[in-house]
Amino acid sequence: MTTTSTQLSRVYPRGTRVNARGHLEIGGCDAVELAAEFGTPAYVVAEEDLRWRARSFVDEVAAVHPDFDVLFASKAFPCTAVYHVFAEEGLGCDVASGGELAVALRAGFQPERIYLHGNAKSVAELREALEAGVGCVVLDSFDDLERLAALAAERSVCQRVMLRVTPDVSGDTHESVSTGQADSKFGFSLADTPGAIERAHASDQLELTGLHFHIGSQLFELEPFRAAVRAIASFGDFPVYNLGGGLGVAYTASQHPPSVAEYLAALIDALHEELGPSKHLVLEPGRALVANSTVTLYTVETVKRNVSTWVAVDGGMSDNLRPMLYGAVYEAIIAQRPLAPASERCQIAGKHCESGDVIVRDAPLPDPVLGDVLVTPATGAYGFSMANNYNAVPRAPVIFCRDGNARLVVRRETYGDLLTRDVD
Amino acid sequence: MTTTSTQLSRVYPRGTRVNARGHLEIGGCDAVELAAEFGTPAYVVAEEDLRWRARSFVDEVAAVHPDFDVLFASKAFPCTAVYHVFAEEGLGCDVASGGELAVALRAGFQPERIYLHGNAKSVAELREALEAGVGCVVLDSFDDLERLAALAAERSVCQRVMLRVTPDVSGDTHESVSTGQADSKFGFSLADTPGAIERAHASDQLELTGLHFHIGSQLFELEPFRAAVRAIASFGDFPVYNLGGGLGVAYTASQHPPSVAEYLAALIDALHEELGPSKHLVLEPGRALVANSTVTLYTVETVKRNVSTWVAVDGGMSDNLRPMLYGAVYEAIIAQRPLAPASERCQIAGKHCESGDVIVRDAPLPDPVLGDVLVTPATGAYGFSMANNYNAVPRAPVIFCRDGNARLVVRRETYGDLLTRDVD
Repeated sequence: MTTTSTQLSRVYPRGTRVNARGHLEIGGCDAVELAAEFGTPAYVVAEEDLRWRARSFVDEVAAVHPDFDVLFASKAFPCTAVYHVFAEEGLGCDVASGGELAVALRAGFQPERIYLHGNAKSVAELREALEAGVGCVVLDSFDDLERLAALAAERSVCQRVMLRVTPDVSGDTHESVSTGQADSKFGFSLADTPGAIERAHASDQLELTGLHFHIGSQLFELEPFRAAVRAIASFGDFPVYNLGGGLGVAYTASQHPPSVAEYLAALIDALHEELGPSKHLVLEPGRALVANSTVTLYTVETVKRNVSTWVAVDGGMSDNLRPMLYGAVYEAIIAQRPLAPASERCQIAGKHCESGDVIVRDAPLPDPVLGDVLVTPATGAYGFSMANNYNAVPRAPVIFCRDGNARLVVRRETYGDLLTRDVD
Repeated sequence: MTTTSTQLSRVYPRGTRVNARGHLEIGGCDAVELAAEFGTPAYVVAEEDLRWRARSFVDEVAAVHPDFDVLFASKAFPCTAVYHVFAEEGLGCDVASGGELAVALRAGFQPERIYLHGNAKSVAELREALEAGVGCVVLDSFDDLERLAALAAERSVCQRVMLRVTPDVSGDTHESVSTGQADSKFGFSLADTPGAIERAHASDQLELTGLHFHIGSQLFELEPFRAAVRAIASFGDFPVYNLGGGLGVAYTASQHPPSVAEYLAALIDALHEELGPSKHLVLEPGRALVANSTVTLYTVETVKRNVSTWVAVDGGMSDNLRPMLYGAVYEAIIAQRPLAPASERCQIAGKHCESGDVIVRDAPLPDPVLGDVLVTPATGAYGFSMANNYNAVPRAPVIFCRDGNARLVVRRETYGDLLTRDVD
């Protein structure tokens, strides 16, 4: 079987190319040299791609709606350096825990541009948010509402809030990341929303600015967004509407998500139609800003042929859980010869002690051998987020590349780091 | 709906009881007090249960086969304090990476009692094993074999090795943790094994002591073990046979795995029948030693009723990935009233930003309210192993309880810890 590629897949970061040595180049840096310098596995981020996606997203919103804020849904890549880039690019920040809030503050986001989410916020987290002076707490339940009101009363403050409404629409995505259905752990049901609005309005400690929904993640269809806008428009007229995130991205060349412009057109047409042109609109892209900015570099450690050809690399489910959690599909190439015709289909396995630890199935590769630098693109979202120490494997570094300069922003974990919490 | 329990499920650690205050007690410690003292979520280990399982396992093997070694398959709970308990109890250690090796050495295992596994061992990991003087390297592929031989030659040493053979049997378990099938990333195929034996015998740097298999994890049927012994017995007569691990455990009262005695009877009958009574037998239990030793304590943060009743707690897929990865099923009780009749079936959700973050589905609970300490038993295996910082949630502490004394062995991660690898 031979697959001939004459160009790189469009799922790589902007500016990715094959250099004069025939190697993959990310952000102007030779991927083979990056692997030699920083070791593998490693997350390699094309910084200019991150910045371009942030600017483009903002520009596209500005073109169709005047009054808006774009927040980075930071759970997608909760790394200080990534937050910092988006703070510099003028985004606000969506955080979903005290930990994300701490990182966002450290990275330089202004507290008033931070929105705190979460279906199970603790008292400690709500206190941290009040202490920091976050711009908005998005309330998820009556318990959340009453807790925040009580804590704000203790401090004699009035906190701006929104209500997360579950609009009873289902996105076309993996059930684990569909969040708009009626039977959800998230948000107020349509039935509970009027009561929640009334309760928030009645509190001196809460300033209800509007409603929020987030119907899911990695969505390719736009009708659910329109349906969700219609659902929340039925609860009256608020100054602010936060329509969450959810725009899908392409992990492989065969996937065709809507463009940012198409996504915004659907959302904002519905908003204008239902609520008029003058609302303050908040959007929370996460995956759409980061997924395609990043590639993961691995080293091939073993090539084994039995029923399949198994190409085992030095990472796996410790650096990318998405294939195991959602059956997510990735592409792969070899950095030394990214355009070489494939010789066979391979199972790209990780180094962890279970059969489920397969990063890419049936990947066409050109005669893989030990020492090859294997690259999986589109790993910027939820790879670093869910990285773990399964098999006591130290977590991978994050390297920013720009104009040919590589900069380590998160160092590799050490064996010593694995023991720092031991107190016995 | 009412469920009446008159006693605790048998999946809790030995010695678990309801104390005079009506609270759950683990290792003599009141679980409600543990939650107040150490915070939640927290892994609570009944130390005496760990020790009892190790001793019982060894005693049961000794009763049926004279010449043996029991290794802790440390990937199941790679925590220094757990390794230390098993080292004290006289077990050896099965490690699957350089990181697990580093922890095992620190915890006090003698190097010669350590076996290094792995389908993608790096040169660095093989060097670390040689440097430490591990008792055995279990070779997984020709690449692995040649690499180790070359590295041993550099050091002018002869390393004891075994060959991992994939016996072409399938265990009755989740496909992610079935490892004995022919199309596997692990081991030498039956077809390749004779060549691997020949190559190992021919090397002056390798002392081949025998064969290894590991057909999977969380197995309830015993016939695959017998079939695997028969398969590897066909390759001749070696002094050592390492038959791996894989014995299933009960996560809920409705699960009935074989007893250790039944498991050993099947394995050792097959061994004696095929290879005689005088082989040195190595076994590698992991889950069977640790799963039921531990419970996780959570705090209820929200109770929400829409289509279902959603009880949201302060942990989730950051401390227990098994429900999301394998559809694993757990029980749950409330520590303040463990035997109270259930009022309704609840979806116990975690705090993470996805719908898949549900720890237990349809759990009968007695009128859950905010502040309840919710307990999931049987979380000692692969919870801590795969713990992660999704949503920048700090990882949970590990607390050893014994005779009423609680001892913090791994402290809770802090927000500051999340930033220690930032170098920019």
